[in-house]
Amino acid sequence: MVKTAIIGVSGYAGGELARLLARHPETELTFLSSESNAGKPLAAAFPGLSGTRAGSLVCEHGDLSRASAIADLIFLAQENGAAMKSAPVLLADGKKVIDISADFRLRSPDAYSTWYKMPHTAPRLLESAVYGLPETNRDAIRRASLIANPGCHVTAATLALAPLLAHRMIETRGIIIDSKTGVSGAGRTKTDLIYRFSEANESMKTYGVGGTHRHIPEIEQTLGQVAGEPVTVTFTPHLAPMTRGILATCYARLADGFTDATVRAALTDYFAGHPFVIVREAGDSPSTKDVAGSNFCHLASAVDRRTGMVIVTSVIDNLVKGAAGQAVQNMNLMLGLPETAGLEGGGWWP
Amino acid sequence: MVKTAIIGVSGYAGGELARLLARHPETELTFLSSESNAGKPLAAAFPGLSGTRAGSLVCEHGDLSRASAIADLIFLAQENGAAMKSAPVLLADGKKVIDISADFRLRSPDAYSTWYKMPHTAPRLLESAVYGLPETNRDAIRRASLIANPGCHVTAATLALAPLLAHRMIETRGIIIDSKTGVSGAGRTKTDLIYRFSEANESMKTYGVGGTHRHIPEIEQTLGQVAGEPVTVTFTPHLAPMTRGILATCYARLADGFTDATVRAALTDYFAGHPFVIVREAGDSPSTKDVAGSNFCHLASAVDRRTGMVIVTSVIDNLVKGAAGQAVQNMNLMLGLPETAGLEGGGWWP
Amino acid sequence: MVKTAIIGVSGYAGGELARLLARHPETELTFLSSESNAGKPLAAAFPGLSGTRAGSLVCEHGDLSRASAIADLIFLAQENGAAMKSAPVLLADGKKVIDISADFRLRSPDAYSTWYKMPHTAPRLLESAVYGLPETNRDAIRRASLIANPGCHVTAATLALAPLLAHRMIETRGIIIDSKTGVSGAGRTKTDLIYRFSEANESMKTYGVGGTHRHIPEIEQTLGQVAGEPVTVTFTPHLAPMTRGILATCYARLADGFTDATVRAALTDYFAGHPFVIVREAGDSPSTKDVAGSNFCHLASAVDRRTGMVIVTSVIDNLVKGAAGQAVQNMNLMLGLPETAGLEGGGWWP
Amino acid sequence: MVKTAIIGVSGYAGGELARLLARHPETELTFLSSESNAGKPLAAAFPGLSGTRAGSLVCEHGDLSRASAIADLIFLAQENGAAMKSAPVLLADGKKVIDISADFRLRSPDAYSTWYKMPHTAPRLLESAVYGLPETNRDAIRRASLIANPGCHVTAATLALAPLLAHRMIETRGIIIDSKTGVSGAGRTKTDLIYRFSEANESMKTYGVGGTHRHIPEIEQTLGQVAGEPVTVTFTPHLAPMTRGILATCYARLADGFTDATVRAALTDYFAGHPFVIVREAGDSPSTKDVAGSNFCHLASAVDRRTGMVIVTSVIDNLVKGAAGQAVQNMNLMLGLPETAGLEGGGWWP
Repeated sequence: MVKTAIIGVSGYAGGELARLLARHPETELTFLSSESNAGKPLAAAFPGLSGTRAGSLVCEHGDLSRASAIADLIFLAQENGAAMKSAPVLLADGKKVIDISADFRLRSPDAYSTWYKMPHTAPRLLESAVYGLPETNRDAIRRASLIANPGCHVTAATLALAPLLAHRMIETRGIIIDSKTGVSGAGRTKTDLIYRFSEANESMKTYGVGGTHRHIPEIEQTLGQVAGEPVTVTFTPHLAPMTRGILATCYARLADGFTDATVRAALTDYFAGHPFVIVREAGDSPSTKDVAGSNFCHLASAVDRRTGMVIVTSVIDNLVKGAAGQAVQNMNLMLGLPETAGLEGGGWWP
Repeated sequence: MVKTAIIGVSGYAGGELARLLARHPETELTFLSSESNAGKPLAAAFPGLSGTRAGSLVCEHGDLSRASAIADLIFLAQENGAAMKSAPVLLADGKKVIDISADFRLRSPDAYSTWYKMPHTAPRLLESAVYGLPETNRDAIRRASLIANPGCHVTAATLALAPLLAHRMIETRGIIIDSKTGVSGAGRTKTDLIYRFSEANESMKTYGVGGTHRHIPEIEQTLGQVAGEPVTVTFTPHLAPMTRGILATCYARLADGFTDATVRAALTDYFAGHPFVIVREAGDSPSTKDVAGSNFCHLASAVDRRTGMVIVTSVIDNLVKGAAGQAVQNMNLMLGLPETAGLEGGGWWP
Repeated sequence: MVKTAIIGVSGYAGGELARLLARHPETELTFLSSESNAGKPLAAAFPGLSGTRAGSLVCEHGDLSRASAIADLIFLAQENGAAMKSAPVLLADGKKVIDISADFRLRSPDAYSTWYKMPHTAPRLLESAVYGLPETNRDAIRRASLIANPGCHVTAATLALAPLLAHRMIETRGIIIDSKTGVSGAGRTKTDLIYRFSEANESMKTYGVGGTHRHIPEIEQTLGQVAGEPVTVTFTPHLAPMTRGILATCYARLADGFTDATVRAALTDYFAGHPFVIVREAGDSPSTKDVAGSNFCHLASAVDRRTGMVIVTSVIDNLVKGAAGQAVQNMNLMLGLPETAGLEGGGWWP
Repeated sequence: MVKTAIIGVSGYAGGELARLLARHPETELTFLSSESNAGKPLAAAFPGLSGTRAGSLVCEHGDLSRASAIADLIFLAQENGAAMKSAPVLLADGKKVIDISADFRLRSPDAYSTWYKMPHTAPRLLESAVYGLPETNRDAIRRASLIANPGCHVTAATLALAPLLAHRMIETRGIIIDSKTGVSGAGRTKTDLIYRFSEANESMKTYGVGGTHRHIPEIEQTLGQVAGEPVTVTFTPHLAPMTRGILATCYARLADGFTDATVRAALTDYFAGHPFVIVREAGDSPSTKDVAGSNFCHLASAVDRRTGMVIVTSVIDNLVKGAAGQAVQNMNLMLGLPETAGLEGGGWWP
């Protein structure tokens, strides 16, 4: 049994990790840290885990040496800026590390400091960190010690667009990503008015319009690698009045000669052998509910022959495939386990 | 006091019309028809009107001659296909007619039959019908006898894009409209699983992807008139887990030489003198909650300098500015009343 | 035109007051104070008021002398503890005052300090303050200078039970009030986790079980007056996943000889001449949606013959009849205006 | 591996059963029937199961002989009235049967025909059917061939009240159960307006007031057995604007000599050894979110010393502990498996 730890367990991604790891058949959750819940059982932060083994684990302060002494693989689920301090320590101890924050996602330390407004203090690790999107990077993940787990909007959009760029089916300029997320995407600690029930309910709005959201360089980095040339995207994140889920509606100009059928075939082909991406039937409209609680991404495509655009819609659960589930998927690959271990069974309905 | 009637009052647009007309200072609601509620007071269909004068009005069967005998101006709030039968009768009686359905929105009977899958039986009236979007068509509305009240998605998107096309600030090709509507947009009679609470809640999805939604020819018709050349749009409607509201996020390639400031100035300039459009401050993110219950449209623009795209977001209440409120605004113009009569006071919060 | 002012306008009750007063035909809103929005137009706090006259009023700091210099009647919409400082000043200036907080609701200063955990600093005013529930206290309200506007749960429950106590139809012991409120009842400033969308959505829970909620002495005070003897109630407030609305389900043991019909007749009789209470047909189930946005209270009763209990359900909009609308109704009475002025027109649907 | 079948899999209880059985370690789901989805894979009805083994199972018509030929234990998840036809056939084949409908819940065929408005056609089976509430009836369940799986409201309320009746801590008359359910409790096929999103959202209401709901005889039957004397309850079901969850707030007159501490001790004592009931700390307010997706019931108690009443709040997920999860728990007991098999891991958050 590989022993795992979660640093920063009381946020939504941390709690979802605990939920998933609690039923993982081949690993054992052994250490949890939470500053706000130190000394309390995990069920104090997540009452839904009351009466379970995971729920009775007592959270400790974020003592890395304790985590390192107990666990073999450590998930870092903290605010941006924390992992670049913690990861070097844990890696030096020979541990495997999966970072849910943004600290190791961008390859360039300059890009990091530009978008995240702080210097990167572990730039060397950016070279060895592996971007943890299994559908584009599975082999590298298998050999990695340090995984940068992708952003939630990024996962949804990249899975929609990567196949079409890989097959050179769309223009690399003029790509539009209109992405809608549930409120849990803001995390558990933000107290802004906009995230309170009475203000978020019955409300739909953008945030970060005009090329300002931090997920942009991350999307462009991966799509550029897939395309073999620079890709720019116009990305608009939206807040939707629901708890979980991301729906990314992606628009691109279709290159000549392609059709609904060839687009769909490209998607199907690209994700052959990838267990968590479902390419839906022509005409289907995937809903965020279709993936609630599961690690799946559902994709559907349609060509607008009147305008020459292809539209790919992509749905994920932002806390599962967009965070904790993908982290478990990455762990499975790093440990040589079946990619789906602990992630079987689909989502809930309704 | 001008006397008004509503044919088809028990749907959401009809009910909202009744709510607004009930407090209109210069007209009197005198006749209501509803097949499903004939013989019952309006409050049976809309309990929120209990105890009010409007709520105590008894719905009758859809007898046009009764409506015509009593009222001066008739609102038609029925399914598509009904108004093209009713309007000729009422107009022949010298009545003014405002049709909330799609029957008179498209100028071409062929376009109507293509998109609405039925022949148009009153094609001559298409010539005299006036498209009821006051912000682009106010003078014609003032002189009209028959108004085609615009579609809800159409209103949101057209108000966002018309100024930029009028000022030749954006390319006429490659326009993307990603529009999100609350569930009340589907009307009150549809029983599909997708509109039931347990399936719509916590769910976000597209419907009508790839150039198939009936609002497309209507958007292109108006934008083409404004631009003075054909305009095509890629339009994707989405269902959001809320009752009311539309947020249209519109994307277009900005022509050379324009900036955030000039785009915003163009919007402000275009809507000067139009009381129901608010151009928000730079950096604002309008929310559908900002216009809940009001006849306002809020617009915000941002230029993505990295990609050369301009993004205009537009929010309306689909049942007010997207249907009943706009119909009242049109009525005011037709009757020579203040454009804002009965529509003052803004929306509710939260 | 009577001139009005609102002290503490940026909370939900204050904003709803502004919305209602903005369309009031016989008063003029002249002064607004808000510490958090001083110097900004009201629309900055409530975007739904953008483009309206009320929305363009600039909020000032809570300077009572300014309010007193400008306005004739002042609404106090602040946290508990503030009004007992402000009201004496304003009353000394000859102003009329309507306090939305709890400061003047309990007649006994000791009860106040027991339930609100602070001493009452204006105990003399408790003698002249009039409890502002028009359906039980209309004549006194007409003559009052200082109104204590009732609590939201209190309004719903008292209207349900007062008629049955007045008619000695129920036992005064063993009354149960199970009351469910939307999240806006918590106000706009609380940042607790429980009020954030992701935690409140899909969640229903009690708060203040076992005789601990501050609305209890207020309910018992009024019911005791109506009954002419002490009344105790078991009251349990619940938080429901909606923005607005209160549903109070009230249970009492029916005295011998009464039936469904006599209970319903007692309700109807008690509220004859009261424009904002609707006694629904036998078998009806009032919904909070039935009163969304309106000042109405809907009541329905049923007798459980198997157990001898009578159940009265009562719905209000917590921000209207439960706060701002009732305050306007009180103002109308104080000023000799029609009781329904500015409150006509019913609620919205859906 | 015990082989299981579900008859009527496309409703919410059936789908939840499939979700739970799909990850059950010691049984194998082998046969699914659904009239509306016959010939299609289960994922057509529940897209969240796409890509899973359960999702790829093809639904068949409700052919009992096929089910009987393949499976050892059959879950009946159909409308009331169906199981009393199916169960005799399956039992005659030596199968074990768990019925999710109400057909075998009441011991008296007369009570059944009174409350369910149809004659009971298998009255003999009522004698051998075992009521499937493990916390009050575990030993009998272990020996049963036919289980009547309890109603959802019933489960929540019975678990709250049984301990206090068993310990003679409360009066058997005057018990009030105020129960709130999410909309999924209405099932998947009802098309009433009240269950549509636009009408159910932001709405809270009762249904079945005054002793009319079918869960009443079922609650009284079990509580009467526990108490050893007849028990009557006043039960009011409410519809809350959420998808899942039941919160039952139960009120009873506390007998002399008992306190907060002794009540809580009685609850704790009663459920010792029962893995799915959590008695929360004094002062806790359980939320339906605390049990979303899990088979747990959380209970909290409080004594109102002012009124002599004890209030017990009880939360469950109506589709899990209130239906499918409890059915799996019953199956585990019938098969001699660990009671928690397939139900480990707690719920989701948020």
